[in-house]
Amino acid sequence: MLKVVKIGGNIVDNPGKLDKFLADFASLGGEKILVHGGGKVATTISKALGIETIMIDGRRVTDAETLKVVTMVYAGVINKSIVAKLRTLGADAIGLSGADGGFVVSRRRSPLPVDYGFVGDPESVNTVLAKELLERGMTIVAAPITFDGAGGTLLNTNADTVASAIATAMAGAGVATELIYCFEKRGVLADIGDENSVIPRIDRALYASLKASGKIFEGMLPKLDNAFSAIDKGVASVAICSAEMIASPGYGGTTIVR
Amino acid sequence: MLKVVKIGGNIVDNPGKLDKFLADFASLGGEKILVHGGGKVATTISKALGIETIMIDGRRVTDAETLKVVTMVYAGVINKSIVAKLRTLGADAIGLSGADGGFVVSRRRSPLPVDYGFVGDPESVNTVLAKELLERGMTIVAAPITFDGAGGTLLNTNADTVASAIATAMAGAGVATELIYCFEKRGVLADIGDENSVIPRIDRALYASLKASGKIFEGMLPKLDNAFSAIDKGVASVAICSAEMIASPGYGGTTIVR
Repeated sequence: MLKVVKIGGNIVDNPGKLDKFLADFASLGGEKILVHGGGKVATTISKALGIETIMIDGRRVTDAETLKVVTMVYAGVINKSIVAKLRTLGADAIGLSGADGGFVVSRRRSPLPVDYGFVGDPESVNTVLAKELLERGMTIVAAPITFDGAGGTLLNTNADTVASAIATAMAGAGVATELIYCFEKRGVLADIGDENSVIPRIDRALYASLKASGKIFEGMLPKLDNAFSAIDKGVASVAICSAEMIASPGYGGTTIVR
Repeated sequence: MLKVVKIGGNIVDNPGKLDKFLADFASLGGEKILVHGGGKVATTISKALGIETIMIDGRRVTDAETLKVVTMVYAGVINKSIVAKLRTLGADAIGLSGADGGFVVSRRRSPLPVDYGFVGDPESVNTVLAKELLERGMTIVAAPITFDGAGGTLLNTNADTVASAIATAMAGAGVATELIYCFEKRGVLADIGDENSVIPRIDRALYASLKASGKIFEGMLPKLDNAFSAIDKGVASVAICSAEMIASPGYGGTTIVR
């Protein structure tokens, strides 16, 4: 079973947590793709370069200068540092942006109603290349910078979306695939105030009843909708768990199944 | 014949020249690897971040913070921008640092007699991976950031040396290979003051007589020594030419042969 694992910026920003995660990730058997988020370095560098960070509704606007910075940081230092670390842990890692080999080709988001700048949504994944690299025993490390095949530009892309696009494309190409989102909590909680109230398994029927009872934390709804969407497109299961639990059975979190 | 082409920072820093070069490069037939240098962006970013640039004998010292910056700039924005551009020109480009797939593994240079910091000299090239990517029609774009397999760190590496290491390793792996250095002049000049005095072909006998007569510009000697060293290791020929001439027959420059 191919594992597509996504880690967020909060792990990337914390060297101790990142090292532990990478050691656990490297120890997992089977084919693996790691998708990493950005983190705060891009904001620090933008500020130092005098590039104004513009946010609309809590989301960063990626102008041409910001695109250069996120490409440097996400596809450059973060991606290559993770690749180097994984290699010392015995994984034959290779880092790819969406441009490399046309791995994740996207479409620039319409400037209407809100112009977020150089931001894209994945349209296709080069599953032939990915399969070949995985079959030769390599671990792919994907940066959340994609490539607009039509417009010819790099595009800043949400790492959750990149992970989901890769997992659904690989499943569609006949590879049994599970998708694992690592985030700051242990899983989907029955009681938002109680870290030990992780719901181990959610199918569509349980999801409907949890929603109806208003028990699910609102911020979790889009994540779960995305998870069911991936499952509808052929992904075997989607786990939502803590990065600290990646080497534990069932990832100690919530597994979304059909 | 595999072409390993190196372009320097002066081309990378000039969008107009870079675009023209990439269009010419994409039009070349056969298997191709492009090795790019750094350029001035790393210095600009270092300055903005308050990182002091220390030079010893005209060479940059790469401390831990500078290593992060050159990794961002060389393996990040420069590498991915070139890959994106080549893709729009029809080349199936993939960018690799030395860490990716262990493409160029190096050894950190001894801190004695001069400590240049995180700087490495290539020791091995993953020719198996390179052959597979080339055979599937891909164009490799190599950044001058290598990976110290023993030390586990990324290392800043001279792009000329990376190009030479890749070319000699590919030749050693049985691939007919030529190495092409693009630089700011049209070739090796018989008269340093006359751009039209390019010597079209230099073999070892001519080189000896040019050296004896003191006709060769001193800065050219290490380049020529490196070229003959590559040829001794099996590279078919080494061209020294202008980036503007990459699509011309014989590159309009000087070809070094056995």
